[in-house]
Amino acid sequence: MSDLTPPPGSRMRAEIHEQPAAVQATLETATPAIRDLAGRLRREGVEYVLIVARGTSDNAALYGLYMFGAVTMKLAATAAPSLLTCYDTQLDLRKTFVLGVSQSGKATDVIEVLHAGRERGAITGALTNTDDSPICSAVQHVLLTHAHEERAIAATKTYTTALVVMHQLAALWAGRSDIADQAQRVPAWIEEVLRLEPDILDHAERFRFMETCHWLARGLNFCTAKEAALKMAECCYVVPSSFSSADFMHGPIATTDFGFPCFIVNPTGRAYHSVGVVVGAVEAHGAEIIMLSNADEMLQRARIALRLPAMPEECSPMAAAVVGQLLALYIALEKGLDPDQPRGLRKVTQTL
Amino acid sequence: MSDLTPPPGSRMRAEIHEQPAAVQATLETATPAIRDLAGRLRREGVEYVLIVARGTSDNAALYGLYMFGAVTMKLAATAAPSLLTCYDTQLDLRKTFVLGVSQSGKATDVIEVLHAGRERGAITGALTNTDDSPICSAVQHVLLTHAHEERAIAATKTYTTALVVMHQLAALWAGRSDIADQAQRVPAWIEEVLRLEPDILDHAERFRFMETCHWLARGLNFCTAKEAALKMAECCYVVPSSFSSADFMHGPIATTDFGFPCFIVNPTGRAYHSVGVVVGAVEAHGAEIIMLSNADEMLQRARIALRLPAMPEECSPMAAAVVGQLLALYIALEKGLDPDQPRGLRKVTQTL
Repeated sequence: MSDLTPPPGSRMRAEIHEQPAAVQATLETATPAIRDLAGRLRREGVEYVLIVARGTSDNAALYGLYMFGAVTMKLAATAAPSLLTCYDTQLDLRKTFVLGVSQSGKATDVIEVLHAGRERGAITGALTNTDDSPICSAVQHVLLTHAHEERAIAATKTYTTALVVMHQLAALWAGRSDIADQAQRVPAWIEEVLRLEPDILDHAERFRFMETCHWLARGLNFCTAKEAALKMAECCYVVPSSFSSADFMHGPIATTDFGFPCFIVNPTGRAYHSVGVVVGAVEAHGAEIIMLSNADEMLQRARIALRLPAMPEECSPMAAAVVGQLLALYIALEKGLDPDQPRGLRKVTQTL
Repeated sequence: MSDLTPPPGSRMRAEIHEQPAAVQATLETATPAIRDLAGRLRREGVEYVLIVARGTSDNAALYGLYMFGAVTMKLAATAAPSLLTCYDTQLDLRKTFVLGVSQSGKATDVIEVLHAGRERGAITGALTNTDDSPICSAVQHVLLTHAHEERAIAATKTYTTALVVMHQLAALWAGRSDIADQAQRVPAWIEEVLRLEPDILDHAERFRFMETCHWLARGLNFCTAKEAALKMAECCYVVPSSFSSADFMHGPIATTDFGFPCFIVNPTGRAYHSVGVVVGAVEAHGAEIIMLSNADEMLQRARIALRLPAMPEECSPMAAAVVGQLLALYIALEKGLDPDQPRGLRKVTQTL
């Protein structure tokens, strides 16, 4: 056990704790624009979704991909910006909704894809935290998160609020107000997860010398594995490796030797059984399991058990992401690193 | 320099060397079926491609995604099998071509998605190395690679021949016989890469204690980075980390400290300049660069330079993959591991 105390000046910690309020504000203010867009997508019979994003926003896009698939029943893909920015691909994008995700609203390659999408007949939208940013003037529909300014390099509250907007859009597009309504409880579920903080602080010392690890999940929480791995890369300089648990069985499991740290995200839901099979496989390799779940059966099999709230699977990525953020924050501090200032990164990254 | 001699009994080494002949045989025998399918996709005005695969085949799918985008100008996506196998998503797949990739032809989740695709109006195809396998009876169009039996666990010749089939299908669907014809020279280009073997054997000792590394590329060769990282995971138990070089700049570059090994794939082509920017960034971090390129400017900036043939960008992933295979093979041998028998893996992996 460490006697590390929460750093009072940490911007990342402050922003992690702002998430219940940020989600609440986003739910209260973003709904009219989401409803407007959802109605248009239904009226115009849009059949395909193309999401374009980078970094943390690309993990939010991955959540959208599953939500638009599993809830809205539309074929959704994440676009490789290079197809349009390097390869000048002339796609026919009628009947397609192209959504760009960029918290800063300044991701140049994302904006370029949105311009191309509009020229080729797509309905375009921007999911951003920054009103009046360049991405807003590139699209027909602006969906704003209301996370207020995010100052830490590692994105936290702009990620969870982006998930909330995707959740609402997918649910309203599908006409599933029952699913849309579930999000009202997300602030409370995140509050519940934030109460794990002292526990995570206690466990952080164990990972002082961890240099690499796996993050595993499947389906709706695949984005959680990827985002938590990215947070650990950015803040802790741990080399990230995140897999869909099904892909993991097709090769990467070979890297898992005795004691290898495997962080597994497996709340109850439709991917639960499938991820459970992988838990058995990494147990057989003698791996150390750190489990994020709300199922006793999963938590009992872990070296370190981090309990998620009982909640619908569609909302679980918003709560599970917060556990990943807290782990990245406190492991970084144990390593003597400043998670607010990762080396080599700036808040806005521009690639073409 | 190591005095390691090539292992005469290694199945993986033998199969790496069989690739020029396997590609030649595939080009000679697969064309009628590819031409037949390409004609149908044109006639029926198919607008979307959904590729479903796991493991190495998923990396082949990634190549297809760029080829169907950049050459055929169709919106292509890789499907998450879990959307259909776990979430029971009811997609409308008319005007969509669903392609399953499985060398063994036994990937149960891939087959399930193909069945679902056919029910929902898609044209379905199977890209496999195994005639009469279950995947063949699930689809309307069978595209066979002619790599003969692959016995090593780590896929090599079934990967490069799958790329050749994707290349031909994308080119013929687009009516681009100029691009299709380029593949005739792939066997010779692979022969040229195989002549790097003594050089790679010499360099392998340097990586005896390498535990992790980055593989970076973009666009058409993003699949090369992912596949080489997977080979190193399977054969060398190196924890793989592979990125689109653009995504890499949005976070993971923070993990790259002085001397960190970065394998970069950057042949000339439309992604060349963009990847070059990332080379500058990892140089600034003091990383060790191992470069796969056919451009002097790139090779001169590397600690270890592995020269690719001068070749069209569309074919370069087939040659560059072989460099990754040879690196994985000889680094595994330096580590005292048997690349023919990675722990915890079998030739056919079944996930649901």
